[in-house]
Amino acid sequence: MKTYLDCIPCFMRQALSTARLATTDEVKIKNVLNTVGVQVKDIPMHLTPAETGQIVYREVKNVTGVIDPYKSLKKAHIAEAKTLLPELKNMVEQSDDPLLKAVRIAIAGNVIDLGINKTFHLVEDIKKILNQDFAIFDYDSFKQHLGNAENILYLGDNCGESVFDKILIEQLQKPVTFAVRSAPIINDVTLKDAIDSGLDEVARLMESGCVAPGTILSQCTEEFMEVYNNADLIISKGQGNYEGLSEVDRPVFFLLKAKCHVIAKDLGVHEGDIVLKGINIEAE
Amino acid sequence: MKTYLDCIPCFMRQALSTARLATTDEVKIKNVLNTVGVQVKDIPMHLTPAETGQIVYREVKNVTGVIDPYKSLKKAHIAEAKTLLPELKNMVEQSDDPLLKAVRIAIAGNVIDLGINKTFHLVEDIKKILNQDFAIFDYDSFKQHLGNAENILYLGDNCGESVFDKILIEQLQKPVTFAVRSAPIINDVTLKDAIDSGLDEVARLMESGCVAPGTILSQCTEEFMEVYNNADLIISKGQGNYEGLSEVDRPVFFLLKAKCHVIAKDLGVHEGDIVLKGINIEAE
Repeated sequence: MKTYLDCIPCFMRQALSTARLATTDEVKIKNVLNTVGVQVKDIPMHLTPAETGQIVYREVKNVTGVIDPYKSLKKAHIAEAKTLLPELKNMVEQSDDPLLKAVRIAIAGNVIDLGINKTFHLVEDIKKILNQDFAIFDYDSFKQHLGNAENILYLGDNCGESVFDKILIEQLQKPVTFAVRSAPIINDVTLKDAIDSGLDEVARLMESGCVAPGTILSQCTEEFMEVYNNADLIISKGQGNYEGLSEVDRPVFFLLKAKCHVIAKDLGVHEGDIVLKGINIEAE
Repeated sequence: MKTYLDCIPCFMRQALSTARLATTDEVKIKNVLNTVGVQVKDIPMHLTPAETGQIVYREVKNVTGVIDPYKSLKKAHIAEAKTLLPELKNMVEQSDDPLLKAVRIAIAGNVIDLGINKTFHLVEDIKKILNQDFAIFDYDSFKQHLGNAENILYLGDNCGESVFDKILIEQLQKPVTFAVRSAPIINDVTLKDAIDSGLDEVARLMESGCVAPGTILSQCTEEFMEVYNNADLIISKGQGNYEGLSEVDRPVFFLLKAKCHVIAKDLGVHEGDIVLKGINIEAE
């Protein structure tokens, strides 16, 4: 997915909110906005928003010296999500369709997104999503691919959400590689965060090579690309991964909540909708 | 009121929405964002947001060649507001406190603000505001100043809202000068718009000299400053005028809906609150 004009004011907003997490020094915060502002003219609009977003977070690091402004928030969200784990697992076990319940829970976890200009209320939002209709619902195809798959690549998104992913991975009952970013970016899950989320207990963990808040194949390591190219099923969580993979030629199932109108428009759904969308799934 | 850091992403958003009204050429729209982005570093944060906003709208004009991107919207909003006029006048006449009802109606008209990142639904929003509690309500003092006033300066804000202002001006029953911007800026009322709104029937009309979306005294004409300095009562509509006048030493009553969190915070109220706030009113 390319960068839309609407993404540009959003980059400035993200620059401000991230800079504020990194420092309380208003001069430094203004300097972040200054440097991002100057770079607007150089934004290649054919690249994905995730790649452009990377510039924003790099400038926060350059100006403030803070490498991981979301560190304590990530830790808090993982801890908060973990407190919900027993109840959520119980819901899955009691369900008539445990796989679908786990899919819904994994999408519900996607509300934890600090790059987005929305506040979220974890428990309330989860309850809502557990009963929300899907705007795109390729569930039959998902089940079919899952049944045939011998190995699965699962692309992680945010911290906290990662705990919810564990529930879905357990339900997949297949060997899963869980891919993470190779450096801290927004509140996206890194290797350390994945371990903190308990994902090492249910999946092989792997850094993708990406330092953008998404899966950008041109940034990925050879090792990751081998897994990517040989996976029978790819599960992609969240907006950033969708931005990088919406036009690839591999079978990918996107699980996400459309949290901004740009992504919603690109998907052909409404803002706030939840989606289980498969691409390149007919030929399988 | 000074420019806050939160205003900067908002300027980019305004640049985008205004450029889109001026042209459908995505390259030109991107050029507007580029030039505004580069100027972020030069924004004097001690100036008011209205003065900074002026830069945004100037760049839209420079890049697209369109002087008044809001022209047709302004006309439409005046026409729409006029259709409500008989019903609103009737409400005032039937009211136990016609002046207060007219104040509420004038504030209700302030929902028509195209610089703000909110959609509005005129009839619904008016109904809500007519029953909403004021967060700041200096009404007794307002009535007292009005009773003593021999001449009133009324600072107009948006087109459409201007029609609602007519209702309040009729209730003031004193000589009123209605001040407008000296050039088109966002959907702010100009001399032509004031006449289209029927304000020439109830007030003396005067351009302030301002080309910013607010009343910035340093931009005002000598003629305006004479009226300003000699007015017994100044009624200031909307956020832009508040930004310019929040710290002046004249008795001013601000009538507005706090439509962004920055203004709300500056006023000490919540976003969405309605306000009738007087300053420098004790000494009168």
